[in-house]
Amino acid sequence: MTTQPTTAGEQWRDPAADPGERVRALMARMTLREKLAQLYGVWVGIDSGGEMAPHQHDFVDAAVDLDDLVRHGIGQLTRAFGTRPVDPVIGAHSLARTQRQIVASSRFGIPAVVHEECLTGLAAWQATIYPAPLSWGATFDPDLVRRMAAKIGRTMRELGVHQGLAPVLDVARDLRWGRVEETIGEDPYLVGTIGSAYVAGLESAGVVATLKHFVGYSASRAGRNLAPVSVGPREIADVLLPPFEHALRAGARSVMNTYTDVDGVPGAADPTLLTDLLRDTYGFEGTVVADYFSVAFLHRLHGVAADRADAARQALTAGIDVELPTMDCYGEPLLAAVEGGAVDVAAVDRALERVLRQKCELGLLDAGWAPEVPEEIDLDDAESRALAREVAERSIVLLHNDGTLPLSPGTRVAVVGPRADTPGAMLGCYSFPLHVGVHHPDVPFGVSVPTVLEALGSAYDVTYALGCPVTGGDDEGIAQAVAACADASVCVAVLGDRAGLFGGGTSGEGCDAADLRLPGRQEELLDALLDTGKPVVVVLLSGRPYELSRQLPRLAAVVCGFYPGEEGAGALADVLSGRINPAGRLPVSFPAAGASQPSTYLAAPLGRRSEVSTVDPSPLFPFGHGLSYAPATWLDVSATGSLWPTDGVCRVRVTLRNDHRRETSEVVQVYLHDPVAEVARPERQLIAARRVSLPPGETCVLEIALHADLTSYTGRARQRQVDPGDVELRVGTSSEEIVATLHCTLTGPRRVVGADRVLSPEFSL
Amino acid sequence: MTTQPTTAGEQWRDPAADPGERVRALMARMTLREKLAQLYGVWVGIDSGGEMAPHQHDFVDAAVDLDDLVRHGIGQLTRAFGTRPVDPVIGAHSLARTQRQIVASSRFGIPAVVHEECLTGLAAWQATIYPAPLSWGATFDPDLVRRMAAKIGRTMRELGVHQGLAPVLDVARDLRWGRVEETIGEDPYLVGTIGSAYVAGLESAGVVATLKHFVGYSASRAGRNLAPVSVGPREIADVLLPPFEHALRAGARSVMNTYTDVDGVPGAADPTLLTDLLRDTYGFEGTVVADYFSVAFLHRLHGVAADRADAARQALTAGIDVELPTMDCYGEPLLAAVEGGAVDVAAVDRALERVLRQKCELGLLDAGWAPEVPEEIDLDDAESRALAREVAERSIVLLHNDGTLPLSPGTRVAVVGPRADTPGAMLGCYSFPLHVGVHHPDVPFGVSVPTVLEALGSAYDVTYALGCPVTGGDDEGIAQAVAACADASVCVAVLGDRAGLFGGGTSGEGCDAADLRLPGRQEELLDALLDTGKPVVVVLLSGRPYELSRQLPRLAAVVCGFYPGEEGAGALADVLSGRINPAGRLPVSFPAAGASQPSTYLAAPLGRRSEVSTVDPSPLFPFGHGLSYAPATWLDVSATGSLWPTDGVCRVRVTLRNDHRRETSEVVQVYLHDPVAEVARPERQLIAARRVSLPPGETCVLEIALHADLTSYTGRARQRQVDPGDVELRVGTSSEEIVATLHCTLTGPRRVVGADRVLSPEFSL
Repeated sequence: MTTQPTTAGEQWRDPAADPGERVRALMARMTLREKLAQLYGVWVGIDSGGEMAPHQHDFVDAAVDLDDLVRHGIGQLTRAFGTRPVDPVIGAHSLARTQRQIVASSRFGIPAVVHEECLTGLAAWQATIYPAPLSWGATFDPDLVRRMAAKIGRTMRELGVHQGLAPVLDVARDLRWGRVEETIGEDPYLVGTIGSAYVAGLESAGVVATLKHFVGYSASRAGRNLAPVSVGPREIADVLLPPFEHALRAGARSVMNTYTDVDGVPGAADPTLLTDLLRDTYGFEGTVVADYFSVAFLHRLHGVAADRADAARQALTAGIDVELPTMDCYGEPLLAAVEGGAVDVAAVDRALERVLRQKCELGLLDAGWAPEVPEEIDLDDAESRALAREVAERSIVLLHNDGTLPLSPGTRVAVVGPRADTPGAMLGCYSFPLHVGVHHPDVPFGVSVPTVLEALGSAYDVTYALGCPVTGGDDEGIAQAVAACADASVCVAVLGDRAGLFGGGTSGEGCDAADLRLPGRQEELLDALLDTGKPVVVVLLSGRPYELSRQLPRLAAVVCGFYPGEEGAGALADVLSGRINPAGRLPVSFPAAGASQPSTYLAAPLGRRSEVSTVDPSPLFPFGHGLSYAPATWLDVSATGSLWPTDGVCRVRVTLRNDHRRETSEVVQVYLHDPVAEVARPERQLIAARRVSLPPGETCVLEIALHADLTSYTGRARQRQVDPGDVELRVGTSSEEIVATLHCTLTGPRRVVGADRVLSPEFSL
Repeated sequence: MTTQPTTAGEQWRDPAADPGERVRALMARMTLREKLAQLYGVWVGIDSGGEMAPHQHDFVDAAVDLDDLVRHGIGQLTRAFGTRPVDPVIGAHSLARTQRQIVASSRFGIPAVVHEECLTGLAAWQATIYPAPLSWGATFDPDLVRRMAAKIGRTMRELGVHQGLAPVLDVARDLRWGRVEETIGEDPYLVGTIGSAYVAGLESAGVVATLKHFVGYSASRAGRNLAPVSVGPREIADVLLPPFEHALRAGARSVMNTYTDVDGVPGAADPTLLTDLLRDTYGFEGTVVADYFSVAFLHRLHGVAADRADAARQALTAGIDVELPTMDCYGEPLLAAVEGGAVDVAAVDRALERVLRQKCELGLLDAGWAPEVPEEIDLDDAESRALAREVAERSIVLLHNDGTLPLSPGTRVAVVGPRADTPGAMLGCYSFPLHVGVHHPDVPFGVSVPTVLEALGSAYDVTYALGCPVTGGDDEGIAQAVAACADASVCVAVLGDRAGLFGGGTSGEGCDAADLRLPGRQEELLDALLDTGKPVVVVLLSGRPYELSRQLPRLAAVVCGFYPGEEGAGALADVLSGRINPAGRLPVSFPAAGASQPSTYLAAPLGRRSEVSTVDPSPLFPFGHGLSYAPATWLDVSATGSLWPTDGVCRVRVTLRNDHRRETSEVVQVYLHDPVAEVARPERQLIAARRVSLPPGETCVLEIALHADLTSYTGRARQRQVDPGDVELRVGTSSEEIVATLHCTLTGPRRVVGADRVLSPEFSL
């Protein structure tokens, strides 16, 4: 084993020195094997005794010998917390031991970057489980999401984690896709705004945010996981890329590729995306990390690489700096390829410099670096829980209400359905219990996750019946649910998905749907409940919208919670009781029965028309929709002028008043309609949205400054341009419920805009 | 009215003169208005009195004044026969009168090109109704399709029709699309081979074949008619364009644009497709005609044109030479645009030259031209009927058989189902009765179209019950069908679609499906029939595949007829009785229940894998599948060598023997598997298919000469290339049933190939 040399006098360890020079000085001293070691991860995990050990997973041929590996250093440690339920302090100590071992055993003593999943909070045992991203989108509240992510980041840092594999910035394109639950919604502006708030929060805590999946995954054919993506360059530029542009500006320091091929080219081997666009056009200077196994997939699944070395060569030269989770390709195969001349060492150095610069930023190259370990830590402290609750409360969407809601005190409630009394109903597939549950089916939740039944039971006189599981079930169960309604005055049917991974759920990674009918016998259950004549309130806890149009005329109310996290049940109960006035808005359209996928609101006119096909794409509940118990009164919508220079700003003023005796929130939404453009543009597209809260009796004026760049699109010449001409600004409460249409004329010359264009409006109240 | 000048001495009328000079001489004399008049159609129709009159249709603001229009000439007459049931001789006389009026009333006396639909035969009353294109694909018999088209063309010429709006060369991409029935299948090689045979046949009769729809229509989002198309340039090049390349080489003289936008650019306004690719790369010299109303749609539906004049400008400059069916944009709006300077007259002249050159070729510029009118004509003569019968017989696909088929003589058969006793069940949506039926619901068939019930009734003791209509129906109907099985020994359930247009059917233009379950209550009917315990044979008459996997284990047999045309019932009865040994092969995959769309066999590995998603795309019956009562015995499959120069030929020999006492046919299919390429290629792709017939006891050796060009694909540099390296040739009876895999190595340098590459193998027997 190499003995660690003294560091005295080594300039590259000096925090005061220029980072670029530090990195270069270090690189100059490294052997090829040491260089490569910085470019891959090792999948470790804390075993039940608190020891860190290589993770045994299905995808790797053989377990690695950690003691042997550390001699060369290790770029990343993969998922130290996310794979086993271990006390966090024990885990942090174990991780620190491993870092000390790396530092002690390797020549330069460079600790590893530790990464973890953090989509619904840090994916560690006992950590707060926040709402899943669809709920973030439903809040339309970037500041809240930023605060949530900042707290998640601080927790990660305390445990010694440097990088979080979130957020998912894929724009939902096909609601059948199992990972829709991981997206923020179907609109690029919403995904970009909320996603970049998450990035800003995580990065504010010093944690590297990882933007995924760059780019195209959400458009997988028929919504099937990993299936090829058929999209053209304009759709990529105008729909799929903008959230990444938002989030890069918010300071994200890492990007993860898409697994999929786009028009034949796998993301992990695409230099036009990973280098030309990301580096040269966007100016990104952070690291690009591979989605798990995606480098090897170039050989094994995509058929574009002859072997692992070839896969490594393609990925590295395309711009994948770090292979995750393991060293399948960037280990021995890449070493051989460089030594054999197939790969230029300059490609290694390019990636290495990015990795080391990031380690330098993270302080990992500093002399005297040592892991800090908390003596005690509460991963689910009051602050986290309050944030989880706030996100849940602000995300719940009241889709339909005939007046049954809020439930009066003393109402006798039959709470039924497969999602009524299971903690898992609250959680997305990337939560620790469900994500880890793939390998550990009995993993404990670690944190308290009340169910809707429990939460309603503390406020109402409730009876309960399962009705049916999410999938399967029998007539008897349904009959029991009907019987449970007999003495109730209202039935709350909690329906939806079981989140899971790779076949373990009805939603989640690899859990795609063939159609958008409620899974299993839940529709039958709902019909039976409706046949009782009792008012039926549907609470939907799901990773995607489902068809409810056939039942809607008979439904008393529909409340959508998506996956609201560990505090979700209380928030839902508060919405049902009226303690909270709901103000979430749909980040994804709810389809009508008989519609088909893919379909989102973001379509050119012929993608929205109903009279040219027997299949009507009109939604049941449109993007942006959400009701209130006390809706704001819209007093006025106006623009300061109808002329709008192609390099200027249009100011829209919206005056709202709260005529109720309780606080209310409105989400003011501005959609652009461009009647004539060089290409078929979306018939309407969100360019501004602002959630406004109003105390009782108050009036407010929201001013929205819209830069003309927000009207830009990719024209025939594949440049993003602002065209002169007439446009409509449709201001309203959803993509379909327009309160006022403002007619504006963009004046002046056509302007070609670049990656520095204005992406967001400015709001003032 | 302008008096026609004498033509004496006018060189442009001289058939002996150089066509280019004739056209230029004529153009030099024409006014702008006269020029434009050659670039549009006028929708005429034969009224019940045999008079030609402008067609009243929903899409045009006002009826045109034909007498006024003819003064300037008329480029095309639209659908003279296809809109009303009129005796063909009367129609031909009426058309001739109109042509004489045009000649007499306009300065140059140039007759119009008359075009008609001819997808399932000429769309005229009393004309033979041939099988729809999926059936052509199922024959795998280009020579037969060529003969069919030649006969269709001769019929058209006799009536005075010059141009036929067929074939449809869209490669099926989403089976929900209503126009799948108009496609030849889901494979570019099959569509190209069969489609170009149709073109060769039609053109051999002197009729201009029109390739449609150039390009992308079949990939409309979610299979919804006219919806936007998301595909990238590589998929366009490798999947959607090859059939057009095939067919242009076969001599097609006209091309029709797609309605849809592709990645935002509507086909009618896309110069890269219509000019750069079609003219400059492919060297096409014929005319490009607009799909009906698609020029106006640029303004009205796509939002890329400010008004009709702008739409005309964009279409004309992009490369649409002729507006069809009317002059909405190329009439007054284009006139004003040219006069106002918005459109260069050179753009008009470019289109005009193509139109006049084609008229010259058709003899329409010749001095003394006069319409020829038949004294009598039988549009459904014995030759036509025999061809329709032959195509039907060779197209029927036996998908599944537990030995119940063929039915023994004397079998008591219950014939049930919505498609058992209606002539319309045999016909595709472009057949005259169904196409015209939109406007004339009571239009008579004109030709004899026996039903399956009638055909089976002449051979067997049959009982009949409807069961249920295609859509709708009640329990009583299903009970009656069950009762009809009581005394039968076999039940033949004839299920499927009602072809129609724009909501009038369950398949056909504008009749898209949300999923692939049998329409209406037909699945319920089938379940009830299966519950009787009687052997149930499903005969599917439909415009697309449907899910049958849930029922398959209980089904005795499944026979797929698609829309077999007016002779289809007899052909089906002959297959059921065994008089004919079925040898049709599926041109489209049959999905399994729980699969999702879009999905075809032509997918990269990750588009075919089942373990990465809960939605399994594996088909129930794969592309190319079809059974025989007397299958050929495969004796040997070999290649003359395993080395294959990248500019050379690989010869594959297949030895088959007929071990039965009746004739048999086999469709030998060769699929290419390329394990490593620059891009993710289809996991397997058909590159050769040959139908071989074998008399009893005979052996034959089929030699297939595969040029290396057939392995080409569009690489990273967007060039089509032949790569050196290993490939597999999978030779078998379907895309899944591979008899032998030949391993070959392409040797030599990578070759970039162009539009002149080899598209087809050569076969010798």
